[in-house]
Amino acid sequence: MKLSRVGVVGAGQLGRMLALAGYPLGLRCVFLDRSASAPAAQVAPILTGELEDPVQLSALAAASDVLTFDWENISGSALAPLEKLTKVRPPRAALEVSQDRLAEKALFSRLRIPVAAHAGVDNKEDLVKAARQLGLPGVLKTRRMGYDGKGQFVLRGPAQIDEAWSAIGGPGLIYEKFQEFSREISIVGARAATGQTVFYPLSSNVHGGGILHYSMAPFANPKLERTARIYLKRVMNALSYIGVLTIEFFVVKGRLIASEMAPRVHNSGHWTIEGCVTSQFENHLRAICDLPLGSTRTLGHTAMINFLGTMPDVERLLGVTGLAYHDYGKEPRPGRKLGHCTILKGRVTERDSALKDALKWIKWT
Amino acid sequence: MKLSRVGVVGAGQLGRMLALAGYPLGLRCVFLDRSASAPAAQVAPILTGELEDPVQLSALAAASDVLTFDWENISGSALAPLEKLTKVRPPRAALEVSQDRLAEKALFSRLRIPVAAHAGVDNKEDLVKAARQLGLPGVLKTRRMGYDGKGQFVLRGPAQIDEAWSAIGGPGLIYEKFQEFSREISIVGARAATGQTVFYPLSSNVHGGGILHYSMAPFANPKLERTARIYLKRVMNALSYIGVLTIEFFVVKGRLIASEMAPRVHNSGHWTIEGCVTSQFENHLRAICDLPLGSTRTLGHTAMINFLGTMPDVERLLGVTGLAYHDYGKEPRPGRKLGHCTILKGRVTERDSALKDALKWIKWT
Repeated sequence: MKLSRVGVVGAGQLGRMLALAGYPLGLRCVFLDRSASAPAAQVAPILTGELEDPVQLSALAAASDVLTFDWENISGSALAPLEKLTKVRPPRAALEVSQDRLAEKALFSRLRIPVAAHAGVDNKEDLVKAARQLGLPGVLKTRRMGYDGKGQFVLRGPAQIDEAWSAIGGPGLIYEKFQEFSREISIVGARAATGQTVFYPLSSNVHGGGILHYSMAPFANPKLERTARIYLKRVMNALSYIGVLTIEFFVVKGRLIASEMAPRVHNSGHWTIEGCVTSQFENHLRAICDLPLGSTRTLGHTAMINFLGTMPDVERLLGVTGLAYHDYGKEPRPGRKLGHCTILKGRVTERDSALKDALKWIKWT
Repeated sequence: MKLSRVGVVGAGQLGRMLALAGYPLGLRCVFLDRSASAPAAQVAPILTGELEDPVQLSALAAASDVLTFDWENISGSALAPLEKLTKVRPPRAALEVSQDRLAEKALFSRLRIPVAAHAGVDNKEDLVKAARQLGLPGVLKTRRMGYDGKGQFVLRGPAQIDEAWSAIGGPGLIYEKFQEFSREISIVGARAATGQTVFYPLSSNVHGGGILHYSMAPFANPKLERTARIYLKRVMNALSYIGVLTIEFFVVKGRLIASEMAPRVHNSGHWTIEGCVTSQFENHLRAICDLPLGSTRTLGHTAMINFLGTMPDVERLLGVTGLAYHDYGKEPRPGRKLGHCTILKGRVTERDSALKDALKWIKWT
């Protein structure tokens, strides 16, 4: 194999699941993270240091045939010098655009992918103007470093402008018109350097407080799936993308409105470990290591439930037939993603009934 | 979880796949092996030392909530003292009986499980007598430490008695009447301390030179499957078994003749990683850690092909749709099991056609 040593920036649960998917393929992941007890560091070797430390990043690049990411918010300036040392996949341009909600929306728009009405906000006057021109309710968000609902404020009326500004105000924000959506869905796909692409079926995602609670897949809606694939492929091709890429959408009056993209494996794709012939983790590795992409055929109907803040009673949960358990090896902390489980069943009704059973034993805290 | 630290004697590929199945469950495997670069040692912590070294075995037991085996030939006398330090699962009695072909056949017979006509052989006179009384052709085998066709000699006529004796002669042998079988099959199942049992569908196994080349599963023969389950359950219950247990059978004129048992996960069960809701590796861990056993429902039709002596071209092989690859991280050596692949398809005809494709790229050396 030409590319078999994979350097991974960040050693969270995504990295952990990448490493576990890599071993059977004969791939060896090495991580860089602040913590030597991070989830991936429990299953693979790690360099400890700050994620943007140029010395440690160079050491990681030197030890790797290809560099990839558990954490996609590494700055372009930290990444640029590494491109001389090794292959950086997904490409830097993809990470940079995904780090800035305004740039991301500009890319979507350029590629004729619908997005919510929005405006850049750098001061309170911008916000007042945006709220007036685009209307309320709306969401004020930081352009950078937001995830799992952090760095967001929902404005329901003009009286909340001051409150929103004191909560997250400052330069580098974006105001988006609130979407009255019927459903949140996402699509995960992979693209190889050869241009080969594969796409997973849609998943339907249920959030609470901005953080994913559970997903159900496949979400069978051929029309939306066709459109989502076209959009994802446009982004992939525009960025000469290599690896797994995810786009989250709102479904608004039967139409897809792109919410955001993630240049990596995604929480809403965890169901593919049990639910598809080849998981998103394996396909990310296959893509970045120049191996043929694997089949995304589904093996049944799945529900993936996140463990947030508290781990459930594993013995109770494993008593649910068809349930697979994923412990990330993290210390519990309110709102923290500690693990997940996936239910795999032959029929939708069986899946729904097992999901109901499993939810009895899971508390999001 | 009450039992989460799993000590494993031997760090081969079975241990490696156990460790990889354990991480998502929150279980941590620690190994004992001679080599710090053994397959499992590449993915989990290891103590290095001889497998029967009482000091290292005690250290392993002390660091574990439960002790289990990648290598089942550890002697009863080395095991006995460990029972005071930790739980030993599967139980010592199961390992001991499986280590001696004569004791194993006596157990099968006591449980009314058909076996080939056989006799103990400790000298050449015994062999002459056995060949005369039981008939030829027959197989002379060492009672202990034989695996993958090693320590066996097929006698086709009386003229070969001298040749057989000089090849493997000595005390502690068994002579078995040769079985004119139509097929070799195996059944894998798991039993928990509670008495809960689960069974995988039969696999049909194709050997070459005594070593497994490939398996196809499920081998759909409801009558044989029912019988095989009854036999496996008898052995499990007789031994108060905990963990995964395998029995290999010959199919002779439509009847099952037990060939041998293995008190562990088995090569002919590797297809369960992709082919079933819960793999044999996960169910072994669930059983020995007192967790509920997982569903053995199949997800399609599989073929599992061993890589022997030479690793195939991974890029070619991953080009076969629906194929999962397993590299054990071993140095190539003639006849050595270096890895395997599993094809998973929805239909038997698709499986057969992909198996044919994959076999083009695999050479057993």
